[in-house]
Amino acid sequence: MPSIKRQFSVESISELTIARLSIYLRCVDQLEALGIETVSSQELAQRFNLNSAQIRKDLAYFGEFGVRGVGYSVRELRHYLTEILGLNREHRVLIVGAGNLGTALCHYSRFASESFLVVAILDSDPRKIGEPTPGGLLVEDASRLGEIVRQREVEIGVITTPPDTAQRVCDQMVAAHLRAVLNFAPVQVKGPKSVLIRSVDLKVHLEELSFYLTHGMPK
Amino acid sequence: MPSIKRQFSVESISELTIARLSIYLRCVDQLEALGIETVSSQELAQRFNLNSAQIRKDLAYFGEFGVRGVGYSVRELRHYLTEILGLNREHRVLIVGAGNLGTALCHYSRFASESFLVVAILDSDPRKIGEPTPGGLLVEDASRLGEIVRQREVEIGVITTPPDTAQRVCDQMVAAHLRAVLNFAPVQVKGPKSVLIRSVDLKVHLEELSFYLTHGMPK
Repeated sequence: MPSIKRQFSVESISELTIARLSIYLRCVDQLEALGIETVSSQELAQRFNLNSAQIRKDLAYFGEFGVRGVGYSVRELRHYLTEILGLNREHRVLIVGAGNLGTALCHYSRFASESFLVVAILDSDPRKIGEPTPGGLLVEDASRLGEIVRQREVEIGVITTPPDTAQRVCDQMVAAHLRAVLNFAPVQVKGPKSVLIRSVDLKVHLEELSFYLTHGMPK
Repeated sequence: MPSIKRQFSVESISELTIARLSIYLRCVDQLEALGIETVSSQELAQRFNLNSAQIRKDLAYFGEFGVRGVGYSVRELRHYLTEILGLNREHRVLIVGAGNLGTALCHYSRFASESFLVVAILDSDPRKIGEPTPGGLLVEDASRLGEIVRQREVEIGVITTPPDTAQRVCDQMVAAHLRAVLNFAPVQVKGPKSVLIRSVDLKVHLEELSFYLTHGMPK
């Protein structure tokens, strides 16, 4: 299958589009598991509660995938979405903070996959270092971060420490030349523009439920 | 301070708008902590990397909050966002699945707050029942779900079980008349339209990083 053809500028793609590409990929995975070979944007929208015009617009940034009147080949669409999201190669991930959240993410089947491999989980607490985690990794000493990043070719750092140490860990990740940081600590962390830093706020999901519980369910 | 005035239909508000309201609330919380009293949509956008036209559009669904040429009162905006999101009262939350993720959420400071109170964490594993969790709750027997929901007036159920038991737990939550379900198990769960069911997919965050690592960083 050929690569995506269209040139696009990263700036023109919103984070919402990127998040939707992930959702489309999940949908296409399900269709493939069901043995469905082609799907139109309307069918995709209807089946998964999406917006068909939005699907077409999001995909159009990257090329012309569908065939008018026929729809998308599920296999092709899966291939292109995987390529667009950069999931056709392995990204090595390191987690700092071997508490419950770090340990959970370490073997959370929605987190790790063919595309993301957690290669280390670190902590600075001597009582935790050397302990096994459910995923099979042993907790390693956080002071070895730079060395581990280099040796195991880690790209992405995940912070699951308490809030008061998150910035220090982020600084260490930046110094170790990690290319991207995903922060779960409930505090803003900062770094240079050359490192991609994102924070995850799980409370937004509860707040969405609260909105609907307050104002009525969507139809 | 008066209540939000404008009548709006829940259907007209997208989930993305709701997610952004959560983000605006975090921003306004920070401004308040810094002692800032008024803010324009432009300042808000610039300071937190948002889109000022989007901010005005999102807020306009719910009323006229700002003063032209002056901006928003931070305190008022916080009050209205809290009210719009239904966070001016406590929502009681129950977690089923006392593994690492359930335990982490149980005392995750980004999850619980004044507006969300985790009142129980349940599991069906006899070895876990009766064990204390870091947040102070004891793990209770999952077979008591209905009774606990009734007695403690729980509204929201959170599923952190393995994938193969998630649908059964969801069915039990529906039968117990929980109004909303937040599913972290890596599987789709279904229920009647009268119950609000949302699934959280933490991998979307890694996939966003992967997109930028592949195509270059946004400026």
